Amino acid sequence: MGRKALLDVLGNRMPERRPIWFMRQAGRYLPEYRELRRQAGSFLDLCYSPKLASQVTMQPIDRYDLDAAILFSDILVVPQAMGVGLRFAEGEGPILDVVADMEAVARLKPVRDARQVAAVCETVSRTRQGLPGHVALIGFCGAPWTVASYMIEGGSSEERLKARLAAHRRPSWYDALMDRLIEASCDYLSAQVMAGAEVLQIFDSWAGDLTGDVFEDSVIGPIRTIVDELRLRHPSVPVIVFARGAGSKHGRVAAETGAQAVGIEQAVELASVLKAVPEHCAVQGNLDPVALLAGGERLARRVENVIREVPLHRHVFNLGHGIKPATDPAHVAEAIAAVRAADTRRP
Amino acid sequence: MGRKALLDVLGNRMPERRPIWFMRQAGRYLPEYRELRRQAGSFLDLCYSPKLASQVTMQPIDRYDLDAAILFSDILVVPQAMGVGLRFAEGEGPILDVVADMEAVARLKPVRDARQVAAVCETVSRTRQGLPGHVALIGFCGAPWTVASYMIEGGSSEERLKARLAAHRRPSWYDALMDRLIEASCDYLSAQVMAGAEVLQIFDSWAGDLTGDVFEDSVIGPIRTIVDELRLRHPSVPVIVFARGAGSKHGRVAAETGAQAVGIEQAVELASVLKAVPEHCAVQGNLDPVALLAGGERLARRVENVIREVPLHRHVFNLGHGIKPATDPAHVAEAIAAVRAADTRRP
Repeated sequence: MGRKALLDVLGNRMPERRPIWFMRQAGRYLPEYRELRRQAGSFLDLCYSPKLASQVTMQPIDRYDLDAAILFSDILVVPQAMGVGLRFAEGEGPILDVVADMEAVARLKPVRDARQVAAVCETVSRTRQGLPGHVALIGFCGAPWTVASYMIEGGSSEERLKARLAAHRRPSWYDALMDRLIEASCDYLSAQVMAGAEVLQIFDSWAGDLTGDVFEDSVIGPIRTIVDELRLRHPSVPVIVFARGAGSKHGRVAAETGAQAVGIEQAVELASVLKAVPEHCAVQGNLDPVALLAGGERLARRVENVIREVPLHRHVFNLGHGIKPATDPAHVAEAIAAVRAADTRRP
Repeated sequence: MGRKALLDVLGNRMPERRPIWFMRQAGRYLPEYRELRRQAGSFLDLCYSPKLASQVTMQPIDRYDLDAAILFSDILVVPQAMGVGLRFAEGEGPILDVVADMEAVARLKPVRDARQVAAVCETVSRTRQGLPGHVALIGFCGAPWTVASYMIEGGSSEERLKARLAAHRRPSWYDALMDRLIEASCDYLSAQVMAGAEVLQIFDSWAGDLTGDVFEDSVIGPIRTIVDELRLRHPSVPVIVFARGAGSKHGRVAAETGAQAVGIEQAVELASVLKAVPEHCAVQGNLDPVALLAGGERLARRVENVIREVPLHRHVFNLGHGIKPATDPAHVAEAIAAVRAADTRRP
């Protein structure tokens, strides 16, 4: 099996089988990940060790019958590469220098020559060398809005109100920050492609924070600019846009960003999106991560219900959000088997 | 103006104007609320003082040109009335006795004779007496799933995973708990109607946690049972169902629960729901609370954009979620003025 099912679906061709990958498939629910994490020291040490990070990226590929590996990294690599102080406090999430005025924005550096980007690219190229022929390698970054929200808040925040207010009011530093993040994202993703990434995913985890023209300005607009620029630099590399929480707006995200696929959160049924998405665009998702966590005999039925909503050639099977860390690794194997079995039974 | 615009829209009649109310319109953003809250002592003391709670309910009516007052209370009145220990820790949210096994469920009491219910009903009847003729009084409760999630978790929880797992796996104590909550909700809402509530809203704040058949079992099913029972007891009292986060499933919520209106979170555009909702059902929402918080010249435009999506006779203007406590009360007046102005300009 040398053809890559993920590339086929993203290229609008009939795949040999339904491509499957899982958000956070390399992560805490895997005992082999927890073991490597212990060896590495901090989370960031793990991200920036090409040897260990590529091992982590490969762990789910070694264990499961998947169609894609996704680079093990973090969306906050970009602000760190721009010179923003970043650390992960145990059990508290990321803590960043606050970037919420023009002085702080002016201090941001281009990412092109950052050692963090070099380390990530080495992880990409090491991983690519070890991948089975049918498995595609996905590179990624956070979308400008989501990354900006961490920079403006100085870390995680339940409601991100400071960032959301900035997106509504658009002070000049906010627009400047978004411009810098667009540029950095293009350079970062482009570097990943040159290192061997075959598909790119842009994660806008907090897209659901924004609505109306604010959604257009801070979600759709910046992502479209990135996708356009990548198309110029790397015409054959498909892009998946995951604007999590876009609700009724995924069709517009697909049509207006020019993505080859859109990721869909589990609150939105894939069938409802399919009608609004251009013919050439696939949908990705969207099994409920809690269905995967719960397991049991209902899991196969839940998988089948997702599959039934989308034809094979327009679907990338995935979750609607990341794997919960408490998930039993056996459930992942069961979900994959359920996808394969359901597709085999199809006429 | 003696006709109630809210009752007209919910009764499928052309209203004299577009009815407006705001979720959490009686609350922390109002200085007069913060003043009464100081006098009352604890939050629960305020909820259970009919004199003060009816004053709080009236505060936004005195200040703004609204079409409905909503009872000032809390969705956790029901578990407390069932005998579950409840307190609000300052800055921490509610803390409840955990109800997550059959023994705890068996200890739950009917709410009919609870002093908490009597106090709430006295608030309703006091408020009703003081209301201007064109303002409808809304009573409410939390939906079984949302209330159960607090009981199972013992309070607020970021992800509600214990509750969501129970909804997926449906141990017998979970089904028994949901049955008890359905019964208690019917009795509680019915008591509010007898005390003077003219409209009822069922808040399923965490409906977005659930998907697929789990959504049907724990969101749609229990709410439908409550709406059916209320229809028998009080045929003329309309019910608004707010299944927050239902995403692409609001049409089904409307059709299958028999609600007179469905509330829509701001991530979902009203126009997209309207197509899927039965003709006799209205939609409620869904200005972004952060647009209201941000204010400024964009606010009127945002209000107009919401209004443009729905014809007058099928729309209850509201937010997509509660008012943020930091909102300037002047912004609320501006939003109301923008609704009235936009409707006047319509042909």
